[in-house]
Amino acid sequence: MHMSHPPRVRVAVAGASGYAGGEVLRLLLAHPHVEIGALTAGSNAGELLGSLQPHLVPLADRVLDETSVATLAGHDVVVLALPHGQSGPLAAQLGDLDDSVVVIDCGADFRLADAQVWERFYGSDHAGTWPYGLPELPGQRDLLAGARRVAVPGCYPTISTLTIAPAVAAGLVTPDIVVVAASGTSGAGKAAKPHLLGSEVMGSMTAYGVGGVHRHTPEITQNLGGLTDAQVKVSFTPLLAPMPRGILATVTAPLAGPLTAAEAHDVYAKAYADEPFIHLLAPGQWPQTGSVVGSNAVHLQVTVDEAAGRLVAVGAVDNLAKGTAGAAVQCLNLALGYDETTGLSTVGVAP
Amino acid sequence: MHMSHPPRVRVAVAGASGYAGGEVLRLLLAHPHVEIGALTAGSNAGELLGSLQPHLVPLADRVLDETSVATLAGHDVVVLALPHGQSGPLAAQLGDLDDSVVVIDCGADFRLADAQVWERFYGSDHAGTWPYGLPELPGQRDLLAGARRVAVPGCYPTISTLTIAPAVAAGLVTPDIVVVAASGTSGAGKAAKPHLLGSEVMGSMTAYGVGGVHRHTPEITQNLGGLTDAQVKVSFTPLLAPMPRGILATVTAPLAGPLTAAEAHDVYAKAYADEPFIHLLAPGQWPQTGSVVGSNAVHLQVTVDEAAGRLVAVGAVDNLAKGTAGAAVQCLNLALGYDETTGLSTVGVAP
Amino acid sequence: MHMSHPPRVRVAVAGASGYAGGEVLRLLLAHPHVEIGALTAGSNAGELLGSLQPHLVPLADRVLDETSVATLAGHDVVVLALPHGQSGPLAAQLGDLDDSVVVIDCGADFRLADAQVWERFYGSDHAGTWPYGLPELPGQRDLLAGARRVAVPGCYPTISTLTIAPAVAAGLVTPDIVVVAASGTSGAGKAAKPHLLGSEVMGSMTAYGVGGVHRHTPEITQNLGGLTDAQVKVSFTPLLAPMPRGILATVTAPLAGPLTAAEAHDVYAKAYADEPFIHLLAPGQWPQTGSVVGSNAVHLQVTVDEAAGRLVAVGAVDNLAKGTAGAAVQCLNLALGYDETTGLSTVGVAP
Amino acid sequence: MHMSHPPRVRVAVAGASGYAGGEVLRLLLAHPHVEIGALTAGSNAGELLGSLQPHLVPLADRVLDETSVATLAGHDVVVLALPHGQSGPLAAQLGDLDDSVVVIDCGADFRLADAQVWERFYGSDHAGTWPYGLPELPGQRDLLAGARRVAVPGCYPTISTLTIAPAVAAGLVTPDIVVVAASGTSGAGKAAKPHLLGSEVMGSMTAYGVGGVHRHTPEITQNLGGLTDAQVKVSFTPLLAPMPRGILATVTAPLAGPLTAAEAHDVYAKAYADEPFIHLLAPGQWPQTGSVVGSNAVHLQVTVDEAAGRLVAVGAVDNLAKGTAGAAVQCLNLALGYDETTGLSTVGVAP
Repeated sequence: MHMSHPPRVRVAVAGASGYAGGEVLRLLLAHPHVEIGALTAGSNAGELLGSLQPHLVPLADRVLDETSVATLAGHDVVVLALPHGQSGPLAAQLGDLDDSVVVIDCGADFRLADAQVWERFYGSDHAGTWPYGLPELPGQRDLLAGARRVAVPGCYPTISTLTIAPAVAAGLVTPDIVVVAASGTSGAGKAAKPHLLGSEVMGSMTAYGVGGVHRHTPEITQNLGGLTDAQVKVSFTPLLAPMPRGILATVTAPLAGPLTAAEAHDVYAKAYADEPFIHLLAPGQWPQTGSVVGSNAVHLQVTVDEAAGRLVAVGAVDNLAKGTAGAAVQCLNLALGYDETTGLSTVGVAP
Repeated sequence: MHMSHPPRVRVAVAGASGYAGGEVLRLLLAHPHVEIGALTAGSNAGELLGSLQPHLVPLADRVLDETSVATLAGHDVVVLALPHGQSGPLAAQLGDLDDSVVVIDCGADFRLADAQVWERFYGSDHAGTWPYGLPELPGQRDLLAGARRVAVPGCYPTISTLTIAPAVAAGLVTPDIVVVAASGTSGAGKAAKPHLLGSEVMGSMTAYGVGGVHRHTPEITQNLGGLTDAQVKVSFTPLLAPMPRGILATVTAPLAGPLTAAEAHDVYAKAYADEPFIHLLAPGQWPQTGSVVGSNAVHLQVTVDEAAGRLVAVGAVDNLAKGTAGAAVQCLNLALGYDETTGLSTVGVAP
Repeated sequence: MHMSHPPRVRVAVAGASGYAGGEVLRLLLAHPHVEIGALTAGSNAGELLGSLQPHLVPLADRVLDETSVATLAGHDVVVLALPHGQSGPLAAQLGDLDDSVVVIDCGADFRLADAQVWERFYGSDHAGTWPYGLPELPGQRDLLAGARRVAVPGCYPTISTLTIAPAVAAGLVTPDIVVVAASGTSGAGKAAKPHLLGSEVMGSMTAYGVGGVHRHTPEITQNLGGLTDAQVKVSFTPLLAPMPRGILATVTAPLAGPLTAAEAHDVYAKAYADEPFIHLLAPGQWPQTGSVVGSNAVHLQVTVDEAAGRLVAVGAVDNLAKGTAGAAVQCLNLALGYDETTGLSTVGVAP
Repeated sequence: MHMSHPPRVRVAVAGASGYAGGEVLRLLLAHPHVEIGALTAGSNAGELLGSLQPHLVPLADRVLDETSVATLAGHDVVVLALPHGQSGPLAAQLGDLDDSVVVIDCGADFRLADAQVWERFYGSDHAGTWPYGLPELPGQRDLLAGARRVAVPGCYPTISTLTIAPAVAAGLVTPDIVVVAASGTSGAGKAAKPHLLGSEVMGSMTAYGVGGVHRHTPEITQNLGGLTDAQVKVSFTPLLAPMPRGILATVTAPLAGPLTAAEAHDVYAKAYADEPFIHLLAPGQWPQTGSVVGSNAVHLQVTVDEAAGRLVAVGAVDNLAKGTAGAAVQCLNLALGYDETTGLSTVGVAP
């Protein structure tokens, strides 16, 4: 008898010079069933990856191709890590070419179900709706198993949703939800803009996209709306924090009835008992983003503020890992039938 | 005719080796009517200030005295920058000695009016209630003019209150208020604790004191309660941010009725029109803590989230400056009849 | 008798939207003899200063003019805070217009005496040589008193020179000098470049311009060359550090003969005894850049490594303050006959 | 036929609550041939690891034992991550108990060969000398293969040595070496000290241990002394940088003769051609510590400064990974005969 090495799937990554693409590659380099195929970029095509992503040592000598159907064709999986609006047309062409290819989109193009909402927030035609890559939502894992198309959730929606979902689903709160989420700067991408300079962000916190205008607002609302019959309202305020990675989300909502902190903790513990990547902390311990850096883990805690009549939950995630690229790999595993945790870790790089 | 130089008042600072005390000294060094008197400390007594506060070059050779009535007596003004609970007994002794001395307490001991609330949150006997040093609150400036005792507000209560006060006072919102405020680490003081190590805080955000248990919660509630007849509820979540200074407060409450962002901005503009330290940003621009570092300025912005039915306001302050030491100097000016802005600036040290 | 308020000089600032220009304005706002005149910019002309420099609250409503002779004319002083190469032509035109105007150039155009060296390092024609604005160099203060033109030193040359100058001038070392200097990111300016993004610089140190190619190398060599007859060699390695402001320079050279640390300290103490901005720390205490942020102070320490046969000195400066804008104001004071320290402080904003 | 799972070795970690111990555990969790045994601590014994190292999710429920021979006995491997001076006595007792156990000491106790030098720098009796865990040194790998005792190098010595070793070994330079190395704060450990508070280190650089007094100086000298017959002098200045992890070392020495940058690069390329963890960057690209965070990679670059007559090399390493824990695992692999790279990666977590 011979040991059959499982054949590796060939994965192409479009947008390999950006932060999301780089993180996808970092994770794929540790994935036992993956062979890294074409690496493509826009304006960085022709460059060596080593000059743009010096941390990806094993790929230092790889030259970036132009992002196109031609360069991406012929792979088992294509991961798209492109600016919003670019995945739609590209995915359509890829599908025309080969229906069996698995396309995993880290962008927003296929996340929203409501075309009108898409158009209001993104200002362009709706490209469609793909299975939403948050397996921790009730029923969602089944939709992702064997899927050929996956829309990876946004980073803020991932952590905002997971932080309050058990409370909404269990009816612990009236879903008039306030989210204030502080993100590291990598969430804003690698395009050079003055307000993202190190000189501007170090030593400073700021808010942006305040008042319901951030594009992740409808995505959070959509996710939570699927968990309750009540009308969900979400007030979402994103903050830019002086750190490269990580999101800390504080989510609060009015209690629907009497509830103790211990009861709330129990509800969360049961809701996530079987989730490999969700780590509910011991009572009294609060999430810190430093603990999840580089990992696919989500750290959560929940309590009750009796005087204010509110449940307050806090979640931490690495926006690039479980918030983007880790979710992409998790969904790749589900799509291809690998163990969901293959190539992923719950262990953060701290301090 | 002779030019009479105004006589300088002699100011002692208790707790001169800590962050609040250091910032008081930094500001007093630039104050034209102040002569710096005794500098006192607890365990650091006997040390050179230069070894503990190397940024205070003109005071490098000053030796720290023991904090005591004896060392603090004989000054025109005593500023207390001590751990909570230490000001009460010391102030009582100072008052016994000399009723005319101006005592400005940067600690919490005299901030709360309700003795029961004090005891619940601080676990000790209530020392009393002094005029609250937030002149921007309606009517408060008059109470501080000529005062001999001042309780400097907490850093979080300062920015949380100022950020939402105009909306509460004008009845724009139902006062079911959610505050999420991210603070730099200096707010936690200079005592060495493992979770405050640079290795722990850099690159990480965390929450603490969640669920209404942080001691600043009743202070915010007290401040806002004075602005409305409605019952005020405050859900307050403090975050620790990877920066030395600054607080960014996001404050939101349900709209009491129809309101546009422009109308909200107008209400704020009118409420703070004559305030020298409050800077309402132009519509569309959001506060960043980096802009207020080292200054006594508060930067504010407000908008309306129609879909969520909420007013959302954001404020930035330097927790050590306007959030503590700057407020102390501002109140010193009011107490002694100087122009309120003497020795203070609205210009931050950025980037 | 009436009090004659000294008439204020009108100062224009070219490059008001950049980091150097912003810091010049921050300092001028606190200068008692200055009235701020035209503020000019390149691509940001027409913008409100408040949108670009939100920390400069008193100037928030000022509109930026186009940088040109026309907008800068008619002032007593013009401070140029422009990219290298732009000051030369502009200064020539300003001089044609009005010879009595004081022009203070924060750029490099007029720093180097040797035209060939200029051309080798900057690749353009040499614009000329102006009095070099480092009054702490022997004899230099006299050249700056009453000067109409001043070349403000580069930030690295300022701290590198001041850190080793007493040792070179006193012949304590053979001038085969190694400088390794770590700078905050504001030294690289406000132009958005990918490698200066917060995501790139936070949590990371890097070297650049290694091997004698950085343009500040010949300036350091020129400064030190004026202090000794021996041939000066400078190995200069700049590092980019994850902080907005500050330079920490480590400077070492072989001992010329037997020397103790105490003797070295004494030489430094004497050399800088009368310098208002140079603060030699007590033996055993080492400079930290955080102590000088926002101030015009230079913190120094020196010791002897017997085993290695070397003198090692370390200096800290705020690259934007004493390293650029503070030096400009210091030179403005000298040029106009004000006390040299007017509007400047040795007190840093720490922590 | 049956698949024989290779038996896992049981590894105990002493000092599991510190930074080095935590990093050892992070790496061991990903090691296919290791089972994690006892976790021990000093004052933290009895605590849950999850409360002290929240990033190590799979070990969250493990209780820390007291560090003692009793708790460490019975393992195949014991990794000591203890304060200097504690390994010596403990290792002696472990050896008495079981000579076949592999003991890997992350502390300094067994690094130095010269007892007098040890006593001068550490002030205690010399415990002995073990094989030095830097396999990249010529001949060193053979000494580590099958070793039962390994002294893991210090973090600064690792990067300082590797950065200049090829130049010294090839005689490119006179070994009068200047090292200036900036380290992240985790190198200073997890004990709470005021100068390591986030408020102190963020936004600030400082020097410490200047003048040859840092304990890593003799270790660097010992390493380089083994590469040349010439007398090695090392001037070593460590800097504390505002980042949690990483060391950037700038190392320079006078050229021994004419040399071009290309020739220097070639010498380095040949010296490290077969090293799995050393990554010489393409000419013109300089190391940044952010690229190696969490990885076992060392990034290097070298050039020549003709005017200064010097070779200048720069190296980056993660002080906790390849600088401590990664080296420990690398040596464990060599000691036990696993592939040297097992469980280790050259891929950093960036940005």
